[in-house]
Formats: sequence, C-alpha cells, structure tokens
Amino acid sequence: MSIVSIETELKSIFKERCSTSTSTRFNYSRGEDTYDPVPSKAVIFPRTNEEVSTILKLCNERKVPVVPFGTGTSLEGNVVGNEDGITISLEKMNKILNVNIEDFDCRVQANVTREQLNEHLREDGIFFPIDPGANAAIGGMAATSASGTMAVKYGTMKTVITGLTVVLPSGEIINTGGRTKKTSAGYNLTNLFIGSEGTLGVITEIQLRLSPIPESIMSAVCHFPTLEDAVKTAQETIQYGIPIARIEMLNKDQMDISINYSNLKEVNVEPTLFFEFHGSENSNKDSIKVVEELSNNNKGSKFKWATDLEERNKLWQARWDVYYSVKALVNNGRVYSTDVCVPISKITECVNFAEQEVNKIGLRAPMVGHLGDGNFHVLFPYDPNDKEIYIKIREFSNKLIDKTLELKGTVTGEHGVGLHKKKYLLKEHPDNIPLMKTIKRSVDPNNIMNPGKIFDLN
Amino acid sequence: MSIVSIETELKSIFKERCSTSTSTRFNYSRGEDTYDPVPSKAVIFPRTNEEVSTILKLCNERKVPVVPFGTGTSLEGNVVGNEDGITISLEKMNKILNVNIEDFDCRVQANVTREQLNEHLREDGIFFPIDPGANAAIGGMAATSASGTMAVKYGTMKTVITGLTVVLPSGEIINTGGRTKKTSAGYNLTNLFIGSEGTLGVITEIQLRLSPIPESIMSAVCHFPTLEDAVKTAQETIQYGIPIARIEMLNKDQMDISINYSNLKEVNVEPTLFFEFHGSENSNKDSIKVVEELSNNNKGSKFKWATDLEERNKLWQARWDVYYSVKALVNNGRVYSTDVCVPISKITECVNFAEQEVNKIGLRAPMVGHLGDGNFHVLFPYDPNDKEIYIKIREFSNKLIDKTLELKGTVTGEHGVGLHKKKYLLKEHPDNIPLMKTIKRSVDPNNIMNPGKIFDLN
Repeated sequence: MSIVSIETELKSIFKERCSTSTSTRFNYSRGEDTYDPVPSKAVIFPRTNEEVSTILKLCNERKVPVVPFGTGTSLEGNVVGNEDGITISLEKMNKILNVNIEDFDCRVQANVTREQLNEHLREDGIFFPIDPGANAAIGGMAATSASGTMAVKYGTMKTVITGLTVVLPSGEIINTGGRTKKTSAGYNLTNLFIGSEGTLGVITEIQLRLSPIPESIMSAVCHFPTLEDAVKTAQETIQYGIPIARIEMLNKDQMDISINYSNLKEVNVEPTLFFEFHGSENSNKDSIKVVEELSNNNKGSKFKWATDLEERNKLWQARWDVYYSVKALVNNGRVYSTDVCVPISKITECVNFAEQEVNKIGLRAPMVGHLGDGNFHVLFPYDPNDKEIYIKIREFSNKLIDKTLELKGTVTGEHGVGLHKKKYLLKEHPDNIPLMKTIKRSVDPNNIMNPGKIFDLN
Repeated sequence: MSIVSIETELKSIFKERCSTSTSTRFNYSRGEDTYDPVPSKAVIFPRTNEEVSTILKLCNERKVPVVPFGTGTSLEGNVVGNEDGITISLEKMNKILNVNIEDFDCRVQANVTREQLNEHLREDGIFFPIDPGANAAIGGMAATSASGTMAVKYGTMKTVITGLTVVLPSGEIINTGGRTKKTSAGYNLTNLFIGSEGTLGVITEIQLRLSPIPESIMSAVCHFPTLEDAVKTAQETIQYGIPIARIEMLNKDQMDISINYSNLKEVNVEPTLFFEFHGSENSNKDSIKVVEELSNNNKGSKFKWATDLEERNKLWQARWDVYYSVKALVNNGRVYSTDVCVPISKITECVNFAEQEVNKIGLRAPMVGHLGDGNFHVLFPYDPNDKEIYIKIREFSNKLIDKTLELKGTVTGEHGVGLHKKKYLLKEHPDNIPLMKTIKRSVDPNNIMNPGKIFDLN
C-alpha cells in the first residue's frame, strides 16, 4: 500500500487540473438523476488520451475506482461519484478533430457536445442527427447508447458511430473501428463500448457518420381529443412505412406545462403529435398526404405547418421545453423519468396502461414519447424530501416495467441502466448478466471502472 | 481422458444425425474459399437449441474443437473443418419461428436462408434486405457480419439484427437483445456475437427487422467509357446524398464474362453501373434526375430502365451472375475474392489502383463493387494446382490491402477474417487484437469454438 494518497499523487502530476475542493467535488458528484450527491475524492481534468492513460494506470495499480464524467446530463445515476475513487471530467477534451464533408464523417473528442458539433457544421450542408433532450457530450451519449427524437429515421448512437478511441483500465489506448461505412474485421469492439456506461474504459474520441441536410424539412403539429387517438396515429404512421424523421407525442398535462412555461400561443392544451418530414419536397408531400389521412381517421385536428427554421422551432417549442418546464415545477426538486420502449404494435397498449396507472395514483405526470421507436417517458417532478411520493413513483415505475416486459419491451430505450435500473436489467436479461460480468472481469480485473453501475459485480 | 471417443459419444446421442462417413465429413470441410478441405472427425445435425447445448457441453468438457457450419458459402476459410474436432451443421434448424408484420420483424432459426425468408414474406408487403451474393444462411450472415448490394440503403446484418439466441461454449443458452427498435439495457452482447465467426458460441436464432416493400422500385443500367468514369459517378451520387438503394459496378471484364455466361443481349461489354431506387414514385423520379445528370457529366450512356420485377431481373442479370460466371471459367477451380472497403472519397483512387495493378500482372480479374459503401471485390478464377498464379494473386492482394489501409479503409467490408485475413486484421487493428483475445479467453476458456479463425490465440 502506497503512503501517498491517490489525490496527492494525481495533484503532483496534474497540478491545478486535479481538484480536491469540496465545491468542485460536489459539482461532479451526480448527473440529472434522482440520487443524492456522492463526491469522489478528487476531480481530474485531463487534456489528452495520454493523460487519461496516466490516470488509469495509476488508479489500476492502486485499485482506485474511476468515474468518467461528461456534461452530467445522464438520468439514471450513471455518473454518481465514488467516495473511495476519483472522477475524470472530460470537459477539457472538447475539440472537433476533423470533419470530412465529402465522406459525411468527423472525429471528435469526448466532450464535444451535440450542439457544438452542429454549430460547427452549420455551413457544410451536413449535420449530426442524434438529439437527446440535453446538450449532452458525445462521449457520454456513446457511453449510454443515447438516441432522441430523430432515431426513427437516423438511428441511435449505435448507428452513427463507426469507431472510438478508448483508454482501457490498464492505461492502454486503442482505436476501434474506423472510417468506412461497414467492416467485418474482427470482433465489434466499438459496439461493446457503446452503452457500457464507463464500466469498461474511458471513451476519449468518437468517429461519427453525419447526414446531409435534407432538401426539404416540413414540420407539423396535430391535436387529438384523447391520448389514445394520438398514439394510435403514430403507430399507424410507422406501420404504413412512412419515412418520417420525427414523430413526438406530448400528453395533455405536458402541453399545459410547456404552454405555461414559455407562454406559447401556437398550440392547445390537448394530446398532441409533433411531426417532421425530411426528404425531397415531393417525397415529403407524398408522406404528409398519408399521415394527414391517418390523423383525420383518428379525430386529429387540422395540421399546423411550418417549413423555415424559425417557424419550425416556434411550432416545436412545447416539445423542446419538456424537461426544463417540468423541472421548473419544483423548486430545487428532482425529476424522475421512466424510459420504456416496446414493439410498435404494443405502444398504444403500453401508453394507455401508463395513463391509467398515473390516474390511479393521482400525481402530476406529464408524458413525452418518441413514438416512432415505441419509446416514451413519464416524468414525475417531486420534492426529494417527500419520501412518500418517491415510494408511489417507484411503485408506478415497477408496474410499468412489468407491463413493458410482458409486451416484449425493454426497460430502457435510451437512458441506460446506471444505478437506478440494475434490478430492472436483471428482470429483462437474467441470462445475459453472467456473460456481461465475465466480460467486465476480463477487461477490468480490478473493477476500477465506474464500479456498481449497470450491475453489481459480486 | 475419456476412453470413448467424442464421435462415439455423440453418435450414441444423435444416432444417424451424427455422421462419421468420409463423404459427409468432406461435404462440410470448407466453404467457397480457397483452402484445401479439412474434414472434422464427425458432423452433427442438431435440431434444437438444447441439442446444440448438449454438444457444446460435451466438447467443452473434453476440450474438443467445434466448427459451426451454415450453407458453407463463406469465402475466407471461416468454416474450414478441424481434424481434432467436430463440425455442427445447422441445416436442420431452418424454421421461420414467427413473423410480426405489424412490427416489421421476425425470428428465424440459424439455417433459414435469405431467399427462403423472402419467399415466405412475399405476400406480406415486407422483405429482408440483406443480400450477399450467395443464398446464405442467416445465422452464417450474422456470424460474418454480412451485407451485400442494398447495404447502402438498408445497412448490414449489424443494422437489422436486434437479438440473438446463442449457445455459449459452456452449453448455456442465452437470448440477447429483444424485439424493440432500440435499447440501452446493458452491454451490447448481440453485436459482440455478430461478426465473431463462431469463435464465441453458436448462433441458433436471429431476431430480425424487416423493411416494407417500397411503393416504387426503379432499376437502371448505364455504361461508361472507362471504369474511372463509372466509379466517379457512383462516388458523386453518394456525395450528393441521393437516397439510392443499390449502386453496383461491374468492370468491362466482368461484363464480358456475365454476358457470355447467360448470353445476355440487354447490356454491353463496357464498364457499367447498375442502379436501383426504392421509394415513392415522386421521390424516385427526383433522385433519378440528379443521377442521370451526374452520369451524363461523366460520359455515361443513356439509362436503360426497368420497373417491373421480371424486367428488373433481366436488366440486372449480369450483376447476379458474377460469382458463378467467374467460377465457370475454371473447371473445378477456385475463385479468390478480395473484399476491401474505403471511405467514399477514396473509392475512385482505390479502384484505379486495383485496375492498374491487375493490368501489371496480366491475369484475368473481373471486378464488382458495392460502390455506395466504398466496397469492391476483385475476383481471380484460378487452378489450385498452379502455385505460381496463387503467389501472383496473393502479392496483388497484399498490395491492395496496403493501399486500402493507406486510404483509411478496412481489410474486409463483408466477408470476415476467417483463416485468410488474420495477417491483414493484425495490420489494420494491431492494438485491438489483445482485447479481442482477452474477450475470447474469458468467454471460451478452453478455446473450443472455431479455434484458429480471426486470430491465433497463442
């Protein structure tokens, strides 16, 4: 056992880029989750792959836990600190390393955020299509296998990442995958790290496929008398094979909250679908014709349309407001978000079930859904001091998980497992967990990487 | 050491479904590769997951190598037998387990072939879009991470598989992934097995996403004065962001071979692009307008069109003939196929390089390319007794690999590594191999699963 503490040793290497101050440690002690803060012993701010390697080598020798930290926008306790360990903030690794317009690809450091990348690409006619609610770091989005509103057309992080730089627990730096659209060259290590939530290594660089900005983008909003009518319309849109880019649902309660939050005039307090079509003008018109008919058949209102960027943003404002409008309902409160995903044929049944159960417990529970993927969230704003409410929420969540698994769904569509869903993961994949643990043990024999996340090793 | 041989023990369980006859052992001793046959000690024909489990448990106890075998259409020695081991033929596991039209998904046993599945789906308005040249088994396609002519629009096996049943070397049966379009539930085990070429377990069931048959399918053929003109047109088509479903290249030599093979009248002996557009009629027309202009600018001929299925097949016949027309050039000969893939901006340079090198060595070398993905094959028909020709071909292949890696490409776009590309994989991913081996050792500690494929463990 070394006499010098790990903080002291790291401080001697990283100087002012290793902080042990209480305020810094608390700033990096959790994400936007429902956990109490757990400050690590120190927070280190490396600038290069080699610096991350130095940290991991040292921590591996000393068997000190390491928590990688991006923008801290994860929702399931994925980045909650470790009182025996250190946290690595990747915020100084925020460079766009290269963009190849002619190949629709780019390479970024882990803490480049999705908005930063899209701002950088603005003049190039290409964009990065994965958009979880927050302005998350792309490294964090890789680590949780994030998606968002456009996954129905553009896929998830699994779809757009073709390679990674990863620092392994041993300190070794490897480059997985590459720049080609496809490859069959050995094990798919890239996809092993995507969604591994920092438990197998630190993702420091990401090779991304980008998409051409479509010739025509058309947005529409449509209100429905009941949530079921809205969800059914979304389900039918997918089942007709319409190539839609976004199809988002907000329930009546969420519309109310969003409208109040931003004082919106364009939309009504009713269950609502937000559509977006990407393509040529002709193909969009073809799609819209079918979707309008489906909406009509389900008692939908006349579509409200927008085509230019500013108008589209205005029309979609209620959707963009969701998370922060809900958070604003509770002073210093927290938001508990469910995240189930079911086969599209089951989405109406699953949302109906959630709505009925919400009504039973009598809590305010706005809902938002990426319905094209069969994925939706029920949001509960709550005061963390009110233990009774938390128990009610948790009971609701357990019931929704059971219903989801009965419908052949998954316990997390895009937020990951973190601390919060370990029991749920065990319900969904009891037979997979031993193999996940085997892999974890072989890649990280000292269990230093984000221990206790996804599963408990012992 | 047990006194009873593994063949005898398996025979006592599987009776006539365990064969030790010379002819059967030779029938399952290699794929469509360039290797000499290596018969295993026995070939077993299990019918269920549990039977595969029984075999693996026994082989694991005895440390007997196991080679999983599908339709035997792999090209890189992926299924070459093992003289100390046994081969599992999955051909009796050929049932389509279920199809959910409303969710565009299905579950199949490993040896369902792609044509069998599409025949089954014919009336349902949906189809399975991954089409390597051969009528391969879907389990084998998963194991090699196959793709084909439609990957440019529909992706590869990685894109369409959402779950697997895998029998692990221990005999444990696990179900990875599930039926939802997306999930963030723990490690992505599904993608760890895709492309693992039978070295981590036996894939026995595959959960697949299907695609709706497009409203309109339009096929076209265009000839060019030089190969470079054709490749440049394909490159520009992708760079314009045209949503094309297929864009295939045949060089002049391959056109000549195909035309002779099937006595074709519709096409000319010139470098040729085969296009296919899937979408609404309007969107296809929009795309075609742009592609015709790009072709014109590169001295392309007038497009020859076809819309109904029979006409389309006629027009594309030269493309479908490629492999067998080349094979027919040599009696009992073999075909050596390269399989490099580069970023789209480098495809013209890479194909030009290949053409020049082929001209230097003076061998007949037809070429076919999935140009939309930056992937192409140079095919060499040869007599395996002519060792000098093989050396020439191998020298060409080595040069093409070096050029490909210089252009940031991959050593295999869709055929996998098998025995043939182990050295090439080491060139592309020297830093990845140790981690691949770590995973292999942890999942298959006795190294029974397809040993010696992808990498040498020691």
